[in-house]
Amino acid sequence: MYSQKRCSGSNVDAVDRLRAGAMALEAVTAALIELEDSPFTNAGTGSNLNLCGDIECDASIMDGKSLNYGAVGALTGIKNPILVARRLLNEAQKGKLSAGRIPPCFLVGIGAQQWALGHGIPACPSEKMATKFSLSAYRRNKRKMEQAEKLETVYNPSKRRQQSSGTVSEIMVGHEEPMSASLDTVGAIVVDQEGNVAAAVSSGGLAMKHPRRVGQAAHYGCGCWAENARDARPYSTAVSTSGCGEHLMRTMLARECSTAMQTEDAHQALLEAMQNKFIGSPFLASEDGVLGGVIVLRCCRCGEDQSSDNFQALLVEFLWSHTTESMCVGYMSTHDSKARTHISRLPPGAVAGQSLAIEGGVCRLGVTD
Amino acid sequence: MYSQKRCSGSNVDAVDRLRAGAMALEAVTAALIELEDSPFTNAGTGSNLNLCGDIECDASIMDGKSLNYGAVGALTGIKNPILVARRLLNEAQKGKLSAGRIPPCFLVGIGAQQWALGHGIPACPSEKMATKFSLSAYRRNKRKMEQAEKLETVYNPSKRRQQSSGTVSEIMVGHEEPMSASLDTVGAIVVDQEGNVAAAVSSGGLAMKHPRRVGQAAHYGCGCWAENARDARPYSTAVSTSGCGEHLMRTMLARECSTAMQTEDAHQALLEAMQNKFIGSPFLASEDGVLGGVIVLRCCRCGEDQSSDNFQALLVEFLWSHTTESMCVGYMSTHDSKARTHISRLPPGAVAGQSLAIEGGVCRLGVTD
Repeated sequence: MYSQKRCSGSNVDAVDRLRAGAMALEAVTAALIELEDSPFTNAGTGSNLNLCGDIECDASIMDGKSLNYGAVGALTGIKNPILVARRLLNEAQKGKLSAGRIPPCFLVGIGAQQWALGHGIPACPSEKMATKFSLSAYRRNKRKMEQAEKLETVYNPSKRRQQSSGTVSEIMVGHEEPMSASLDTVGAIVVDQEGNVAAAVSSGGLAMKHPRRVGQAAHYGCGCWAENARDARPYSTAVSTSGCGEHLMRTMLARECSTAMQTEDAHQALLEAMQNKFIGSPFLASEDGVLGGVIVLRCCRCGEDQSSDNFQALLVEFLWSHTTESMCVGYMSTHDSKARTHISRLPPGAVAGQSLAIEGGVCRLGVTD
Repeated sequence: MYSQKRCSGSNVDAVDRLRAGAMALEAVTAALIELEDSPFTNAGTGSNLNLCGDIECDASIMDGKSLNYGAVGALTGIKNPILVARRLLNEAQKGKLSAGRIPPCFLVGIGAQQWALGHGIPACPSEKMATKFSLSAYRRNKRKMEQAEKLETVYNPSKRRQQSSGTVSEIMVGHEEPMSASLDTVGAIVVDQEGNVAAAVSSGGLAMKHPRRVGQAAHYGCGCWAENARDARPYSTAVSTSGCGEHLMRTMLARECSTAMQTEDAHQALLEAMQNKFIGSPFLASEDGVLGGVIVLRCCRCGEDQSSDNFQALLVEFLWSHTTESMCVGYMSTHDSKARTHISRLPPGAVAGQSLAIEGGVCRLGVTD
């Protein structure tokens, strides 16, 4: 079980569930709930506030076994957006609705909230999801925006737009004062004891975003991706992304990384995907900096006796890469007593948005059929 | 200029604009406006009504030259949703907002409507977008749903879900009475005289959909796709899709078809894409019928003297394919005095959702650099 932008908690619940035989989908949901509940992450409680001072959350989840998917965008008043995405996935699996109607896999705004309430997920007043930090960041950001708009009008009245660069959590005002914001999107990727993978992502979105802006965390192929191995696809892969939603959407980074991971050398595959499909992507040619990060898990069965159905080893590779200044990563297997956490940083002198960091590890786990 | 589900009007405005030297993006927008304004299409005026009797529209647009993209989902109270998607694309091209904020490329619901009003796009009362046909269809559907739910409770109280099959516009109630609905999604694909491509799509969504359900027409890679030729990509391609949103989303059909069209035989490439990436897609393995259609345009320069910058011929291939019972297609070039229209149907005996029809044509156009 691997999570991204994980700054508190230990995701013990998710690993305990895996130990008890839970499937990847259940474990990844448990991991996301813990990350959303942390007031220090930009997801669920503690999410960035939008232009109007409201919390609007995006989340999605994908099951590598069934390839089913559920997502919510710009959701308000629900403590754990990932629970709604998960429930949409579950309900869609049950088949058609009355009169042959096709169940939705993506709902937004008040419609997503009403659907959640109708399916027994309780409401949560938005005030309870805001934190002291998110509220004071909002007030600071509002002041900075007003100052920036005044300055722009005074010094360059004809230029309505400012071409500045910055990292996702450190968007610059005139290259001087960073926009206050909580840490980025949270995500998790999991492989269970049967070798199934699942991925999920949840985000409060960019600070001071336009109301009802939907980011990559609610976008199929962009926020998360999970696909079990099959036929000509030797590796199971799970990916979750974080960073500037518009950059991650336009490059479909989660799915691109998943597709790239089918060649032998995982490290090289991810390096090339990040260089060619993200930093050097023709879809972002006009951007002066390309900001994002991914956590990637891939695995394949590798028992000495490949034909044995009873017990095989699962070779699990876990990698992360980012073009932002830093990315927090945590990981834990059912063999570990506690999670390992790591803050990955760009090499000294590297420029955020143009360079990348890449790291990872390998482990071998027992797996049952 | 090619359009899909085009049932009235002649898209003369779009072709007139091309004749006057307009870029693909402008022409595709003009084509979509005409299709949205037709009361006979399920987009803009005449859209299907949702469960609550409201009109909520999805639309997106992509420019093959800049690869920029704009989309709106579950938009209410705006006559031409494509205009908002187009404006989002335009505004994002202008660079960052005040205080370095990144402009949105996807807005939904009331946020999309407010953004549109703030950018000078006028409001339109929803009542004006409903038609006599869409309102009476809604009343019939509501009655059928109530009957179906009663029947399900009486005959099979434990089974809350009904496993029925049907085409997109003919969803069956207990295999008896089709759900009344307007014609499907509209889309258009264009190549301009410089050889740039653009694609757009607009939809009122499935009849009786859940409020704020967002379908493929607002989903990147699913509703439309456009990419000019570059480097190792010999063909420019533009694709627009129609059908069951959830099927088109989970297979990312627009982008898959675009990617597939880089091999020499266009007809074979589209046939294989529809068979392997749609009907036989592992992402829809649990579905009993896979319903959708695509219009595809691809082109490459093919002057006798490839090095001449002044005048070259553009070889344009236009294809369409669908697994639904039928699909309406219209096409017109600047050399034509009027549009040709065609209703494509599955071959006799073919089963909708499991078989496909595929047709197309080729033409050679003059192109300026």
